[in-house]
Amino acid sequence: MASTPAASRTAVPSGVTLAELVQALGGQPQGASQRQVHRIAPLPDADETALSFVAHARYRPQLAASRAGVVIVPPELAQAALARPAPPDGGWAAWVTPDPYALLAALTRWWRVHRQPRPATQGVHPTAWIAPGARVHPTARIGPFAVVEEGAEIGAGAELGAHAVVQAGARVGPGTRLGPHVVLGYDCCIGARGLVHGGTVIGADGFGFAPVPLPDGSGRRWDKIEQLGAVVIGDDVEIGANCCIDRGALGDTVLQDGVKLDNLIQIGHNVRVGRHTAMAGCVGVAGSARIGAFCTLGGGAIVLGHLELADHVHISAASVVMRSILQPGQYSGIFPIDDNRAWEKNAATLRQLHALRERLKALERRMTT
Amino acid sequence: MASTPAASRTAVPSGVTLAELVQALGGQPQGASQRQVHRIAPLPDADETALSFVAHARYRPQLAASRAGVVIVPPELAQAALARPAPPDGGWAAWVTPDPYALLAALTRWWRVHRQPRPATQGVHPTAWIAPGARVHPTARIGPFAVVEEGAEIGAGAELGAHAVVQAGARVGPGTRLGPHVVLGYDCCIGARGLVHGGTVIGADGFGFAPVPLPDGSGRRWDKIEQLGAVVIGDDVEIGANCCIDRGALGDTVLQDGVKLDNLIQIGHNVRVGRHTAMAGCVGVAGSARIGAFCTLGGGAIVLGHLELADHVHISAASVVMRSILQPGQYSGIFPIDDNRAWEKNAATLRQLHALRERLKALERRMTT
Amino acid sequence: MASTPAASRTAVPSGVTLAELVQALGGQPQGASQRQVHRIAPLPDADETALSFVAHARYRPQLAASRAGVVIVPPELAQAALARPAPPDGGWAAWVTPDPYALLAALTRWWRVHRQPRPATQGVHPTAWIAPGARVHPTARIGPFAVVEEGAEIGAGAELGAHAVVQAGARVGPGTRLGPHVVLGYDCCIGARGLVHGGTVIGADGFGFAPVPLPDGSGRRWDKIEQLGAVVIGDDVEIGANCCIDRGALGDTVLQDGVKLDNLIQIGHNVRVGRHTAMAGCVGVAGSARIGAFCTLGGGAIVLGHLELADHVHISAASVVMRSILQPGQYSGIFPIDDNRAWEKNAATLRQLHALRERLKALERRMTT
Repeated sequence: MASTPAASRTAVPSGVTLAELVQALGGQPQGASQRQVHRIAPLPDADETALSFVAHARYRPQLAASRAGVVIVPPELAQAALARPAPPDGGWAAWVTPDPYALLAALTRWWRVHRQPRPATQGVHPTAWIAPGARVHPTARIGPFAVVEEGAEIGAGAELGAHAVVQAGARVGPGTRLGPHVVLGYDCCIGARGLVHGGTVIGADGFGFAPVPLPDGSGRRWDKIEQLGAVVIGDDVEIGANCCIDRGALGDTVLQDGVKLDNLIQIGHNVRVGRHTAMAGCVGVAGSARIGAFCTLGGGAIVLGHLELADHVHISAASVVMRSILQPGQYSGIFPIDDNRAWEKNAATLRQLHALRERLKALERRMTT
Repeated sequence: MASTPAASRTAVPSGVTLAELVQALGGQPQGASQRQVHRIAPLPDADETALSFVAHARYRPQLAASRAGVVIVPPELAQAALARPAPPDGGWAAWVTPDPYALLAALTRWWRVHRQPRPATQGVHPTAWIAPGARVHPTARIGPFAVVEEGAEIGAGAELGAHAVVQAGARVGPGTRLGPHVVLGYDCCIGARGLVHGGTVIGADGFGFAPVPLPDGSGRRWDKIEQLGAVVIGDDVEIGANCCIDRGALGDTVLQDGVKLDNLIQIGHNVRVGRHTAMAGCVGVAGSARIGAFCTLGGGAIVLGHLELADHVHISAASVVMRSILQPGQYSGIFPIDDNRAWEKNAATLRQLHALRERLKALERRMTT
Repeated sequence: MASTPAASRTAVPSGVTLAELVQALGGQPQGASQRQVHRIAPLPDADETALSFVAHARYRPQLAASRAGVVIVPPELAQAALARPAPPDGGWAAWVTPDPYALLAALTRWWRVHRQPRPATQGVHPTAWIAPGARVHPTARIGPFAVVEEGAEIGAGAELGAHAVVQAGARVGPGTRLGPHVVLGYDCCIGARGLVHGGTVIGADGFGFAPVPLPDGSGRRWDKIEQLGAVVIGDDVEIGANCCIDRGALGDTVLQDGVKLDNLIQIGHNVRVGRHTAMAGCVGVAGSARIGAFCTLGGGAIVLGHLELADHVHISAASVVMRSILQPGQYSGIFPIDDNRAWEKNAATLRQLHALRERLKALERRMTT
């Protein structure tokens, strides 16, 4: 085991005071607002040099036990944050806001820029391959061994990670970052301020084949349907690592503005995902499904092909959407986990469930006659 | 959102007449066979310049409402295609065939070659690394930063995408294309006319370990079983993006001719997949499973290890194959999705299902005594 | 279909006798211990030149029918291994050991080193990019187009595959191998003797966003929470191909010593996986889950966020962990697969299960009054 956890390396030598953070990000300081913050940490790992946060009153006991120097809290917890037994180096501080989670998010973004900048490529790396007919904005940054093919376009301030490939005619919007080994397929495009993590493939062929009977009658082979569409991705879209977003068969596959996808997600050809919809890891959306805006899909959920999900539909993790869902709401379909022996008995009985229902019906009939 | 959808870029300036398409691909023209086709589009998106298709009579209403200039239809819909209110630029055309889907597939392949050629590498890119002992056919095309290691062999007309890696002793058959970032591991081979999409890893180690008790009795560690086999892939195989096909432990992992795999599929070591079997996205096949020919596995299906599936077995999406299936047919095992409240009640009851059956039995016994 | 299966290429021209193997690896030779072994093969594929193994007495019939020249067997099968009808080239040999599987594992490792060495990079490939401030141990091997960024550290005897990327400040321990296209993100670290297969992305951002209401009231957008932690991986860890191990939000994501992950696995931010825990392919572990030591997760299993699994918990394939599991044991939650017609009836009834229970209760009440 590595002896020094990486998180300790995220500490910055020079602290920042709560007062300075409030000036940059708002909220109300209470208590020792001159306290120096050297790092941000989850509540159980935070010490006097750390800032942490509590979003709900149900974490009051954890707050009481914490040694975090500064805590982002909702107003109802400010007193609890300050009332802890005092640290050796002075009093505690509370950073009070009605929405601790949103303030934490803003703080992480400030911290990224001012205290822990992400290492970034500068300019065009000498090993990158830029095809003669490609257009790369002078402010774009292109990593080692990245490839920009003929007719491709890289916008202002965009960034390609090491080995990223932007194929012929593809377009990367301003400020958008493609991680290492990302592929943006030919004729595909992504809008502004996007972020695509390592290894994701955008614009591979959709899975389209026509069955053709074999002459010997033993079965059929599959003849390829060339995938002539592309992938069109809006602004402010984030896509995780090792995802696959297939190009459309005839029309396009579309991810609208603000969509957020976690890792290892499969989006089939012709799918449309509405704005600000989010999907957790390992989700699979089959071809031609249409998913509304503001939806959420839990990890490992599967949506079958050609279905429609209305806006504001929420699918629980590992649930399988087998029919269109046209009413907003939360939907689930998960086999409950149990110890193996109990599961075996219940699963075996499940295979007789319809028969049990018939037996129950028969009993009911006998009782009423 | 990008304002110009990519599909519009797939339009070709110079059209092709239905009569010319019939000459190339067969079928019967009806109506305005001199109508120019500039693009292929799904029915709802098609305008007068587009060719579309209808495969089933159940789409008759959508056909009636469509503005597609030319429609591929089965004979029973030819009249409906022509009877639509006439367009400003002349009459409609129908392209009549008993199998609209197969004709569409053939048309897409014609279109890919004649109207919308895929951008392709030419020759060996100057940045590629070809090891001294590798054999690359003079007609093969090798993309930027591709790697061909010692003893590897690239067949006639084969194509390696950017950053593709063909490791030592591996062989790529004639006409086979490996997409960007594909890895073909050492000693593995793929036959002719194959297509492997971006990021797929063929020939990583299978998951094989022997448990060894720890001296302190707290548990066991895992000792590696080196994976000494390879992966052998037949002709006409297509594999999607970001898949994993592991090398065999002692023997080989085998995909037979004509197999089609979608994206993000896991094929464990020693698995054998029979010819013309197709798997949708996110399928996982555990080690040493043997899957017959002409099977289909729906998206997210899981096949446990060492099982056997006969030819012509069809597994529904997200179903888990826990035992060998030796009879052809369709098999399913999916928890039905429901609104969350209903699911919660049913799932809770499911954990008492065996007990309910016992109670039902007891009632039945009382009724009959 | 390729006519020569790759496994046949793994045969070595010069054999090794059982006596020599025993000298290297222990165990008891019986029968023709001077028999030459040219390859290792599964029992059904083994001929007189091959060594195979039988771990359990239930495979006695397969052993009796086998033509394997040498067979690793437990003591109770030694006689059966030798009693087979003799081969043309002399008698059979048995290699007797109380734990055939562990001996096979040791043999594969010996074979890898002495008979079938894995092709490996030598030194630093001339095409690799090593940033000025990176530290690469003189004995490390760096593949073509690999990238080692500023401040990264590559240990003694470590190996980077083609196109592997070690980002700024990341550390690769001694003897650890990263496969082709692996990404080790900035500030992440992996310990000694590790192995990461192709395409795996370690240290992409975790999936963290704060919901922010849109001004028009139609829904909310997602504001990014920068992921400020890293990934910390212990010694002797193996990770399969195309996995994703996300960096922590504030603290770190941690895989402890001896963890083994198969392919296409998703590990969310802040997850902790205890030592010697193993996960099969396609598992998804959501953010902040804490998984104990010596656990196993079957293929396609899903663990929801913020849950805890105790040590020695075993989750069956495709099961969904929806609550913390604090007792060791085997747990399952799989919908049993059935022919489609039976499944449809049972699944439809399942949606009325709670109602059926109420009806059963009502009957019971009537019977007892």
